[in-house]
Amino acid sequence: VLTGRVADRNGPWLAEELRRHGVDIAEVITVGDRPADLRDALRFLIGVGVDLIATSGGLGPTADDLTAEVVASVQGRAMVLDEAWHAHIGEVIDRMGRNRGWSAPDDAIAAGVAKQATVPVGADVLAPTGTAPGFVVPPLDHTGSIGAGPPVIVLPGPPRELQAMWPAAIAVPAIASILSGAGELRQSTLRLANTLEAELAATLRERADLLDALEITTCLRDAEVEIVTRYGAGQQAAYDRFAAMIGETYGPRLFSPDGRTVDDLVAEALLTGELTIASCESCTGGNVAGRLTDRPGSSAYVLGGLVTYSNEAKTTLAGVPSALIQEHGAVSPQVALAMAQGVREVFGADVGISTTGVAGPGGGTPEKPVGLVHLCAVGPQGMLERRVHLPGTRADVRERTVSIAMHLLRELLS
Amino acid sequence: VLTGRVADRNGPWLAEELRRHGVDIAEVITVGDRPADLRDALRFLIGVGVDLIATSGGLGPTADDLTAEVVASVQGRAMVLDEAWHAHIGEVIDRMGRNRGWSAPDDAIAAGVAKQATVPVGADVLAPTGTAPGFVVPPLDHTGSIGAGPPVIVLPGPPRELQAMWPAAIAVPAIASILSGAGELRQSTLRLANTLEAELAATLRERADLLDALEITTCLRDAEVEIVTRYGAGQQAAYDRFAAMIGETYGPRLFSPDGRTVDDLVAEALLTGELTIASCESCTGGNVAGRLTDRPGSSAYVLGGLVTYSNEAKTTLAGVPSALIQEHGAVSPQVALAMAQGVREVFGADVGISTTGVAGPGGGTPEKPVGLVHLCAVGPQGMLERRVHLPGTRADVRERTVSIAMHLLRELLS
Repeated sequence: VLTGRVADRNGPWLAEELRRHGVDIAEVITVGDRPADLRDALRFLIGVGVDLIATSGGLGPTADDLTAEVVASVQGRAMVLDEAWHAHIGEVIDRMGRNRGWSAPDDAIAAGVAKQATVPVGADVLAPTGTAPGFVVPPLDHTGSIGAGPPVIVLPGPPRELQAMWPAAIAVPAIASILSGAGELRQSTLRLANTLEAELAATLRERADLLDALEITTCLRDAEVEIVTRYGAGQQAAYDRFAAMIGETYGPRLFSPDGRTVDDLVAEALLTGELTIASCESCTGGNVAGRLTDRPGSSAYVLGGLVTYSNEAKTTLAGVPSALIQEHGAVSPQVALAMAQGVREVFGADVGISTTGVAGPGGGTPEKPVGLVHLCAVGPQGMLERRVHLPGTRADVRERTVSIAMHLLRELLS
Repeated sequence: VLTGRVADRNGPWLAEELRRHGVDIAEVITVGDRPADLRDALRFLIGVGVDLIATSGGLGPTADDLTAEVVASVQGRAMVLDEAWHAHIGEVIDRMGRNRGWSAPDDAIAAGVAKQATVPVGADVLAPTGTAPGFVVPPLDHTGSIGAGPPVIVLPGPPRELQAMWPAAIAVPAIASILSGAGELRQSTLRLANTLEAELAATLRERADLLDALEITTCLRDAEVEIVTRYGAGQQAAYDRFAAMIGETYGPRLFSPDGRTVDDLVAEALLTGELTIASCESCTGGNVAGRLTDRPGSSAYVLGGLVTYSNEAKTTLAGVPSALIQEHGAVSPQVALAMAQGVREVFGADVGISTTGVAGPGGGTPEKPVGLVHLCAVGPQGMLERRVHLPGTRADVRERTVSIAMHLLRELLS
């Protein structure tokens, strides 16, 4: 995670889980495999006075997996081999090994098993959901009693294992009592389309009288500006006044007054209208279909899609007349429209969505530069088209185009 | 970023840039909009003795954007309005505003512009690449001279703006002199397919004699185990011995001895063989095509793809006989093969790749449970098929299936 080869999926997941229990996250720290860096980070968090620390990762069988040892040492506890877990983990690893042809000798494997079964003395052990157990480690003082400072929840790194272990972690009395003491922390989200962050900043300054009790975070993402507000239960009326002011100021640009995402709104409109959809993509190369099918249950309305990367595919599969491509070029509003209409017919879908553009870094011309994209959405009640010229890298252009396609569908269906 | 609504793209990017300059990253800290949390984090990093700190984000026009002020205060500098930047940012915002219908009054916008033009006294100002300038802020001691401690590079949050500003940041003498003092830090990556992390752990234990001068990190990701090693220039021979040992131990399972990714290897095989490819996807819903077209220049070999989410689409578009679907079900090796063969013919491609499975959470049966996926790759020299039963959520199953599809293509083409 530290070098960016792997994205952090645990920090965000834990933050959201803890928020739902009324816990506000102060810091998320990513460290590498050097024990001193982890020790410094734990001591820093203890020093700033947080009530609870959770770690993820570093519980594997290799020598660079040091979290349990370092946490134990910071909390004043020794490590000890737990015989019951030793036997259990040994069985799991045996079973995994039998399904493969292993080349490592038994004693080397045994050393890894013993490492994963070595636990902080007196900690609550959380049963493995993969091969590694987790822990809840409250601090010991010099007399051997539970001392001052936050307990540390030690969780495995693989997100699936961490998430499966979480219910056991928060059921440990030391953790449950902290969570029960946290007040309710509400979070509400507003989403604005076609709005500059600078414009929203001006609104917030102008109406600062409405803000003082609310913790407001604004964030520009893709094709929208998101306003996330956190507040205690007693501030609900203040939040309602703030949200009403944003609604009055921005009108239909406030496309989501209740936090629903553009993906939620598109899915709901398709389901409610009993409509089906198909996509025809060039520059986004399948990612619009991928985003539509991210949702559980999307097979109720997604019939499928075409990735027509070559001009020939646009003609033979989506039925775009080759004369149209010759006259206007593949990146043109005419071809975008023909793609959306074509895919609708090919799949017999109610709604067609298309993208065609120059994602770059090559392929740009003075008339059709890198970042130029045409989109078109066609439905039973008409069509909407959009021409955008997007900045950034190939990945930026593709990602943003997918989001704009979702907004175009939202507008078409609303 | 703290709540996970936005993924951190700047930490990983900066880590990799700094590593190329020989700088080793100690910690990446994510904080929210509370000034005290940012102040605590900066003081912690100064306290542990790092040579350089970089921040990203919090330079926007809204009141929750406080990075410049907090960094200035920690480094002992006041803030002052810079008249030249004030005029420059005002012009940029005016231009953006003219292209839209703004509802905010001029004085509220002016306050946001003034905030972004207020800079730490005596800092090196980095020209805006969006609307916000960045800074290099060395510490001042109580006499007003440059004091002890690391300089802080203050960068904007949007990745495109941050990356565009980076060359100017490292050209500032205070930063350049730190980077020039860092030794060369090499990093090499080995990638293993079909290997358990526990098996690799056993190898590393057994051959600990080869490891002591090397900083080795192992990471299980998707369908592979990655071994990343960092070492100084003087340890090249030690690294070469270690890499040779892994090659001898794992044979062809070491599919990448030089760090190239499975995506690199598939793209190179297609380009070298002058082969074209098309995909036919059910459970991955377009994401295999999306991954193939992520690469610049992929239009040289990707002809396109079909997303055949419905059975009807499998039949009418990919030519899968409906009798085959009735007999074996859509999730079956027979249908996976027919999809790969079909899409090859439809696009006239050399290589066809298909996925069909139960991504969940619904749709599972005792015979075909959630997570069961069949894949097939067909090329000029034959075919490879795979049946997997994957754990985890819908997103896990889809993501992992895409990676397995890439490995299947690698094996087919190698």
